Amino acid sequence: MAGRAFKNFIPLLDRVLVERVPHETVTKGGIVLPEKSQNKVLQAVVVAVGGGSKGKNGELKPVDVNVGEKVLLPEYGGTKIVLDDKEYFLFRDGDILGKYLS
Amino acid sequence: MAGRAFKNFIPLLDRVLVERVPHETVTKGGIVLPEKSQNKVLQAVVVAVGGGSKGKNGELKPVDVNVGEKVLLPEYGGTKIVLDDKEYFLFRDGDILGKYLS
Amino acid sequence: MAGRAFKNFIPLLDRVLVERVPHETVTKGGIVLPEKSQNKVLQAVVVAVGGGSKGKNGELKPVDVNVGEKVLLPEYGGTKIVLDDKEYFLFRDGDILGKYLS
Amino acid sequence: MAGRAFKNFIPLLDRVLVERVPHETVTKGGIVLPEKSQNKVLQAVVVAVGGGSKGKNGELKPVDVNVGEKVLLPEYGGTKIVLDDKEYFLFRDGDILGKYLS
Amino acid sequence: MAGRAFKNFIPLLDRVLVERVPHETVTKGGIVLPEKSQNKVLQAVVVAVGGGSKGKNGELKPVDVNVGEKVLLPEYGGTKIVLDDKEYFLFRDGDILGKYLS
Amino acid sequence: MAGRAFKNFIPLLDRVLVERVPHETVTKGGIVLPEKSQNKVLQAVVVAVGGGSKGKNGELKPVDVNVGEKVLLPEYGGTKIVLDDKEYFLFRDGDILGKYLS
Amino acid sequence: MAGRAFKNFIPLLDRVLVERVPHETVTKGGIVLPEKSQNKVLQAVVVAVGGGSKGKNGELKPVDVNVGEKVLLPEYGGTKIVLDDKEYFLFRDGDILGKYLS
Repeated sequence: MAGRAFKNFIPLLDRVLVERVPHETVTKGGIVLPEKSQNKVLQAVVVAVGGGSKGKNGELKPVDVNVGEKVLLPEYGGTKIVLDDKEYFLFRDGDILGKYLS
Repeated sequence: MAGRAFKNFIPLLDRVLVERVPHETVTKGGIVLPEKSQNKVLQAVVVAVGGGSKGKNGELKPVDVNVGEKVLLPEYGGTKIVLDDKEYFLFRDGDILGKYLS
Repeated sequence: MAGRAFKNFIPLLDRVLVERVPHETVTKGGIVLPEKSQNKVLQAVVVAVGGGSKGKNGELKPVDVNVGEKVLLPEYGGTKIVLDDKEYFLFRDGDILGKYLS
Repeated sequence: MAGRAFKNFIPLLDRVLVERVPHETVTKGGIVLPEKSQNKVLQAVVVAVGGGSKGKNGELKPVDVNVGEKVLLPEYGGTKIVLDDKEYFLFRDGDILGKYLS
Repeated sequence: MAGRAFKNFIPLLDRVLVERVPHETVTKGGIVLPEKSQNKVLQAVVVAVGGGSKGKNGELKPVDVNVGEKVLLPEYGGTKIVLDDKEYFLFRDGDILGKYLS
Repeated sequence: MAGRAFKNFIPLLDRVLVERVPHETVTKGGIVLPEKSQNKVLQAVVVAVGGGSKGKNGELKPVDVNVGEKVLLPEYGGTKIVLDDKEYFLFRDGDILGKYLS
Repeated sequence: MAGRAFKNFIPLLDRVLVERVPHETVTKGGIVLPEKSQNKVLQAVVVAVGGGSKGKNGELKPVDVNVGEKVLLPEYGGTKIVLDDKEYFLFRDGDILGKYLS
C-alpha cells in the first residue's frame, strides 16, 4: 500500500487529497487580487496520495502528482471531506489538469 | 475464497461490509458533537471483506481495506443489510474513499 | 460444462438458481417473525449453478457460490422461473451480495 | 465454420435457432394444461447453432447448447424468422437462461 | 487488403455488400407469393466483402460470409448505396443473422 | 509519424482528409446528371491520411485508404475544414464505407 | 514524467496546452481578414505537452504533437486556463484534428 497519508488519512487507489489555495494575481494596477474574488479556486496543493490504480493484471499504476506539489484542478468534480474542521477535496489522479513546477 | 466473515456472513467478490460509527468532533468551545448531529455518518469500521474481484485472466485482486480499519465512505451508494437486528452496509472496495491509519 | 443441475435443469454460464427462504428473526419480545412479514425475502438457498462465465481467452471462471449454500440476494433483479409448479429465481453470480457460512 | 444447420439455414456467430415448444404442465387436478394457455412459451428446442463468437484474439468460443437440447428462453428478446412457413427464433447463446438435461 | 470487390467497389473492414432478393414462397394453395408482397425483403445475396475487422493486436478477423452466398438480414440497419443505378446494402458482418447453405 | 500531408496539413491518428467529388451518373436518357443535383455528395477523393490509430500496446494501426483513392462516405459525420479557401472533410478511417478500385 | 512545461505549468497525462492564434486569410480582393472575424479561432500553437497517456500495462504513450507546432483544434471542447493573465486551452491529444507542417 504505497501512497502518502495526511493527518492519519490516506486516500485509496488513485485518489489525491488536495487543499485549495487561492492564487494571488497582481492586476495591471498592482493590486494584489486573491483569486477567490475572481471565481472558484482551481489551484491546490497535494496533501496526500493514494497508492495508485490497479492495472488490468493487478499491477499498480502510481499517481502522477506528489505531496507538496501545486496542481490545477478541473472546474467541476471532486469530493469535499473535512479533517480536523478543515475542508479538503479528493480528486481522481486522472482528473487533475496539470501541475506547477516549483 | 479468501475474505473475512462477520457473524457467519461473508461478502462476495470485492464487496466490503462496514458498520457506520459516528465521528466525534470537538467544537472550538469544547462541546463534543457526535457527527450524526451534523449530517450523514460517513465514517465506518470494516467488519468483513470479500475475497476480491476477478482480474481479466481470473486472478484475484484482493480488496484494499482490512477488517478493523476505519474508512471514509462516499456520501451515496452502499446496500443496507441487517444482521442480528443491526444495520450494516455493503460497499464495493473501489468506492471507499480512504482510510484512517490508527 | 461444469455446473450443477436441479430437477434436470441447469443454469447456463454464470447464472445461479436459488430458492428464496424466509429468514426467521426473533424480535426482542421473543416473537418469531418470519422475514416475509417484514419485507421482501432476500435470503435464499442455492439449488443449481451454471458452469461459470467465459474469460477473455475463453477460460472458464467458476461461480463463487455452491449448491446448498445460503446467500443474500440484492433487492432487485433476478428472473423468476417455475419448475414443477414451484418458484425459483435466476441471478448472475456477480449480483449475489454475500453468503452465510454454515 | 463449425455450427449445425437446419433446413439448409445456419445461424452466424453465437446465434442459436430454436423452436418454441409448449411445456405441458399437469395441474393438481390432473388437467393437462399446455403452457401456451398460461403465458408466453419460454421453453424451446435447439434446431441449429452458429459456430460461436470470436474471442479477442480471433479464437472461436463455441456456444453452450447443442442441437436437440431443450432450453429455457428469456421472456424478451429473440428474432423471429420463418423457414418453410414455420416460425423459429434466433437468440444469442449468452441470453439463453438454462437447459433441461434429458 | 483481402476482401472481394463488386463493380470496382470494395467495402472496408468488416462490411458486407448485399443485393436483396425476394424469397419466393409457395403458399398451401400453390400460389407463388414473392416475399416482397409479404413484407420487407430480408434475404439477400453477398456481392462483395471487406477485408475483415482488426483485432486488438491489429490482426485481421475475416468476415463469416462469402461472395455468392445467400444470407438472412436483420429487419433494421444497413446502409443503402447505389452502384450503376442499382440499390445495394452495406451491413456489418456481425449483424447478418445467418446464411443458407446451397 | 507516418501519414501523408496535403498543403502542409496532416491529419492526426486515424483521421482521413477527403475532398468531395460529385459522381456523374448518366440517366437512361443519356442526360449526364451530376450527383450533386440528386442529393448529398457521398463520393470523395482522399487527399491526406493520418499515421493511424494506436493499438492497445501502443503499436500503430495504419488506415485502410490511401491518398488518391476514391471512397464512399457515410451520409452523416465528418468535420469540415477549410484549407486555402477550399472545403475539405475529415473522417475517421473506420467510418469510411468503402472504396472504388481504379 | 516526460512532457514539456510552459511558464512552469505542465499538463498531465495526454493533455496538450495550446494558445489560439488567429489564422490570417487573404480574400479574393486581397483584404487580409483575420480569422477571428470569420468565426471561432481553430488554429493554435502548442505551448506545453503532458507526458502522454498510460497504456493498459502502464507503458507511456507519448502525445502526437510537439511544442511549437501549429495545430487544428476541434470546434468544441477544451478547457480554458489562465496563466499570467493570458488565456490558454487544454485539449486531449486525441481530440486535436491535425497539424500544419512548417
